[in-house]
Amino acid sequence: MHEITSINCQLFRVPLPEVLSDAKHGDHFHFELVTCTITLSDGSEGTGYTYTGGKGGHAIRAMIEHDLAPALLGKDGTDIAALYDFMEWHIHYVGRGGIASFAISAIDIALWDIRGKRLGQPLWQVAGGAGNSCQAYCGGIDLMFPLEKLLGNICGYLARGFTAVKIKVGRPDRAEDVERVRAVRELIGPDVTFMVDANYSLSVAEAIDFSRAIEPYDITWFEEPTIPDDYTGYAEIAAATNIPLAMGENLHTIHEFQYACEQADLGFLQPDASNCGGITGWLAAAQLAKQHGLPVCSHGMQELHVSLVSSQAHGGWLEVHSFPIDEYTTRPLVVENARAVAPDVPGTGVVFDWDKLLTYRQH
Amino acid sequence: MHEITSINCQLFRVPLPEVLSDAKHGDHFHFELVTCTITLSDGSEGTGYTYTGGKGGHAIRAMIEHDLAPALLGKDGTDIAALYDFMEWHIHYVGRGGIASFAISAIDIALWDIRGKRLGQPLWQVAGGAGNSCQAYCGGIDLMFPLEKLLGNICGYLARGFTAVKIKVGRPDRAEDVERVRAVRELIGPDVTFMVDANYSLSVAEAIDFSRAIEPYDITWFEEPTIPDDYTGYAEIAAATNIPLAMGENLHTIHEFQYACEQADLGFLQPDASNCGGITGWLAAAQLAKQHGLPVCSHGMQELHVSLVSSQAHGGWLEVHSFPIDEYTTRPLVVENARAVAPDVPGTGVVFDWDKLLTYRQH
Ligand SMILES: [Mg+2]
Ligand SMILES: [Mg+2]
Repeated sequence: MHEITSINCQLFRVPLPEVLSDAKHGDHFHFELVTCTITLSDGSEGTGYTYTGGKGGHAIRAMIEHDLAPALLGKDGTDIAALYDFMEWHIHYVGRGGIASFAISAIDIALWDIRGKRLGQPLWQVAGGAGNSCQAYCGGIDLMFPLEKLLGNICGYLARGFTAVKIKVGRPDRAEDVERVRAVRELIGPDVTFMVDANYSLSVAEAIDFSRAIEPYDITWFEEPTIPDDYTGYAEIAAATNIPLAMGENLHTIHEFQYACEQADLGFLQPDASNCGGITGWLAAAQLAKQHGLPVCSHGMQELHVSLVSSQAHGGWLEVHSFPIDEYTTRPLVVENARAVAPDVPGTGVVFDWDKLLTYRQH
Repeated sequence: MHEITSINCQLFRVPLPEVLSDAKHGDHFHFELVTCTITLSDGSEGTGYTYTGGKGGHAIRAMIEHDLAPALLGKDGTDIAALYDFMEWHIHYVGRGGIASFAISAIDIALWDIRGKRLGQPLWQVAGGAGNSCQAYCGGIDLMFPLEKLLGNICGYLARGFTAVKIKVGRPDRAEDVERVRAVRELIGPDVTFMVDANYSLSVAEAIDFSRAIEPYDITWFEEPTIPDDYTGYAEIAAATNIPLAMGENLHTIHEFQYACEQADLGFLQPDASNCGGITGWLAAAQLAKQHGLPVCSHGMQELHVSLVSSQAHGGWLEVHSFPIDEYTTRPLVVENARAVAPDVPGTGVVFDWDKLLTYRQH
């Protein structure tokens, strides 16, 4: 029994170097980072965190500070499963997804950071231990980039050693999307892995048409063709087309993952530990993926997900997201032989450069 | 076009006169009230609000103040459908249920209050117009009341003119639940309508056993027998038992209502305008209920729901909840001939006693 003695939550609003756009979330000017540092009575300390695309950060912090932290102080910080269960029920009435999932994620990750440090083991080992590296691809929030800039961006990924890329689709003119997919495939040649992501901007019928139109370009997955809530719509698309479907970044509860695994006929599952209940939530989703024969991938948060995807025998692709988090941690993502390599220090291995973040702190 | 010129959000933490307990949310000492007063450029003004059982209020206020209000200022406050759609997408990544649904609800209700005032019509008329009164029952948060107190409470409901009552079930010892149900039916006689509510504390198998055990006591519905996420579990219970099932207070998006209507084999739907997207969200759920042949009922917030349930031709039962909101508005719920009567003033007809609330304001 090692009691939680303090929980310190901070919110940062970090500007993006350029405006990033996708089909449904519009333009991003900032991302929000909510960090949560927890101390136990034996002096051990860990930091967890979550992200948003620029909205919701204040609400996440308010929930941690007013609803979760006061109720967690004094509880055993080493019994993560019990704390996770407690948090879910504690805020159930205003929870089950949304802000609550982000808030729980930040706390849960801090607890796993402590667990790893106390065990003297890196996260990839504590979370499963299957390996310490995984396949990785670069995903751009590049929907509104002119074609030349899009292609330049892709070249940049390849220059950094990646052999897999993803672009956004869902422009008002569908023909432009097809042309962009064609141009990217032409640029990268036949050996680079290539995915597309519509950020659920299409109807089921539009998604079917589009999938057929881009089928000649050897697409590894079609991500979020339509709204995440329409599980059976996904199955309809899957039944009518040949490109495997992927989703997960908008699934926040284990129930939503279950519906997706059972009803959506996916090819890949992409849970995000920053919004599905932290490492506990991600591993539960990974377990479901395994049961359904799906590779478990990730969304965003590559500095942490590299350890999780690597840790699983059925680990799939790590998304390397375009929010510039590497500038604010002490260990930018390591890529060797086109694979991402997990940190080898005890805990999550994600250490923030607090001095650099200080400017962006919100009060 | 009448622009939104101000949005003023306030949070109140109102103590309960006694501790209220249910099977899953534990003990309630307070409820939270988040109000949202919106002004348009023509000077018209409306107030919306939402509730919580004591947690999440700060997060709801933070989302309104930081994410929704700044984005709504300057938009046409009379085009509620467009604003509703805008809000859903604006906070989609951190939304789809949870805190976002509560925040949107408070704003949406304020906009409907304005709509009614501008039209010079009461809510029951603006929302549908089928009628201005509805059946109502008293629901206690009385799980841990000793039997004598429970029965005394029921007598109080009858003395106030109600002819329908609901009690909580889900005590650790199921036999006690059955005994309480028996004792209440014996007390009220055969002519009073009687429902039970387990606050999703039971497994599917336990719910089936319990439903069979209380079947002799003429129960109108069995509310939330098991977790709201398990739609097909509800259908299993329904298939194995004879008491109709009810749910809705934990459904926050139209998709969740759709799953429930299609998969859960319900007898009654109970949307709550304070957590399913306000009046717009409630009416959308009511529409779904109609399509599936279900009476549309309500959860909590009787001072507002009386107008909504009354407004629908397929309106079912109004829950008269035990949070003492009547003490903080200028019009306590009116009950005539065992029916609840909707306010007849333009707008929602819910006017807060701000002076009385002031003590409980949170900063
Ligand atoms: Mg995506
Ligand atoms: Mg209930």
